Amino acid sequence: MRVGLKSWMQPHLDRVERALSAGIAAESPADLGQAMRYAVLDGGKRLRPLLVLATAEAVGDVANSPAALNAACAIELIHAYSLVHDDMPCMDNDVLRRGKPTVHVQFGEAQALLAGDALLTLAFEMLTPPDGSVPAAVQAACVALLARASGYQGMAGGQAIDLASVGQRLSEDQLRQMHRLKTGAVLLCSVQMGAACVPGVPAEAHAALTRFGQALGLAFQVVDDVLDVTADSVTLGKTAGKDQAADKPTYVALMGLDAAKAYADALAAQAMQALAETGLPEARLAALRGLTAMVVERDN
Amino acid sequence: MRVGLKSWMQPHLDRVERALSAGIAAESPADLGQAMRYAVLDGGKRLRPLLVLATAEAVGDVANSPAALNAACAIELIHAYSLVHDDMPCMDNDVLRRGKPTVHVQFGEAQALLAGDALLTLAFEMLTPPDGSVPAAVQAACVALLARASGYQGMAGGQAIDLASVGQRLSEDQLRQMHRLKTGAVLLCSVQMGAACVPGVPAEAHAALTRFGQALGLAFQVVDDVLDVTADSVTLGKTAGKDQAADKPTYVALMGLDAAKAYADALAAQAMQALAETGLPEARLAALRGLTAMVVERDN
Repeated sequence: MRVGLKSWMQPHLDRVERALSAGIAAESPADLGQAMRYAVLDGGKRLRPLLVLATAEAVGDVANSPAALNAACAIELIHAYSLVHDDMPCMDNDVLRRGKPTVHVQFGEAQALLAGDALLTLAFEMLTPPDGSVPAAVQAACVALLARASGYQGMAGGQAIDLASVGQRLSEDQLRQMHRLKTGAVLLCSVQMGAACVPGVPAEAHAALTRFGQALGLAFQVVDDVLDVTADSVTLGKTAGKDQAADKPTYVALMGLDAAKAYADALAAQAMQALAETGLPEARLAALRGLTAMVVERDN
Repeated sequence: MRVGLKSWMQPHLDRVERALSAGIAAESPADLGQAMRYAVLDGGKRLRPLLVLATAEAVGDVANSPAALNAACAIELIHAYSLVHDDMPCMDNDVLRRGKPTVHVQFGEAQALLAGDALLTLAFEMLTPPDGSVPAAVQAACVALLARASGYQGMAGGQAIDLASVGQRLSEDQLRQMHRLKTGAVLLCSVQMGAACVPGVPAEAHAALTRFGQALGLAFQVVDDVLDVTADSVTLGKTAGKDQAADKPTYVALMGLDAAKAYADALAAQAMQALAETGLPEARLAALRGLTAMVVERDN
């Protein structure tokens, strides 16, 4: 990882971790908060929150913006809920996540179902703080973006396609559509919420950031498919080779390993180009460029 | 049912039904929208939406308010999602709901899980329409209320207590706390969102409406416990005697059938009294009074 990115990331990761921890009370009815904390804290790359914060700082002078921090936490809660439900026996039936037993293994299926529901709901609590620190218009804009990105015409819809496509042969267009919804919509939403936290961003910058988020989201998924084949479970922190074993359609299955790697690089280049087209000062784009490189170069 | 209430209800029910149907596209990724429509449309008493609309009309001159209609749909989507997930095998494992096979029986467990997630998410889409019809401050206020009422310190927390308390003896205080979260929080939220749709409601009216919503929510649950024992499955539209069979703590188990019935009546009287204390014109309170009577007198 680039040195500049690392020094930017650490304080931002610390803020997100503290805010997530503060946002989920350990004391809660029937220990539901414990299952939620287990699902969210001390794990994960926090790519989505970092994208929110890096975008907000790219479009405005908003270091330590409460709006951006709330949005960063909210998108990570959505990500965490989706993993908890995805891992359940009726879905992917997975037992390992971030190197730990999955939530339903640790707490039981019913508590995992409720913890996922509650994490999803908490995302919208996070976006609507009662303390007056975030303008109502920013709150409403972020809720609108997040709900649409994660709902049935976004992430949940993509998961439904994923379920329905096991053992099917998808065309590249169909595969791209599935991933655009399943992982791409929430990654794009991270960028869009970051921009929505700052009033007055020019339309040209918004459009270029949208292209950036789309290319990055697809690159992320292609790399995921590559890692499913090339990485081992310990490095990955989750079961490797799972998609292949389940005969799921992936970019590697569709185009082969080398072509998939080259495609990921091409998408990263597209994302970098879109950043140049935002018209924002290059100095402000360093964190977003660093995160883009991290997505393609990661080994888990 | 009182004649006055019936003539008020029908057009309001029609509006809610049309808005819910319009809000869930049948054309959707992997037919997820179909499972969602199955869970929501053509069924249910729509008590929560009616409470939102009746409250908004009680506090202001807002017939046909888009804000109140959105909030009415949103709360019904939350209710519907909770039923879909509650019925799943890892929770209550129920096969009958509103006289039809439950969603997981009809569409499979994985699709039911996703449909519930997507209904929950759609509630927050509904509260944040992109068309400028609802002020951002009202959008943000409704999201804040709904997320807190349905999350881990509200409905989801109550469900976690319910799960943990099967076969346990709860005190009346513990039972009330469980129900305050599990069903009461969302019923109270219906009233609070209705009031939040209208700016400038006096604090005295807000406080009295909160007391109204709390008493009504508890009355609803006590009646539910009574019906579990006294009604048959056909009338109820869901499996009767289920709580008793599962040895769940209920008001009937705690205090006996006759005392539970008397308690429901006393709570309804408290709710009616709270309405008188709102200081609102009596003519505006007719629908809320009618709905209160309906809650106690219902047979399903």
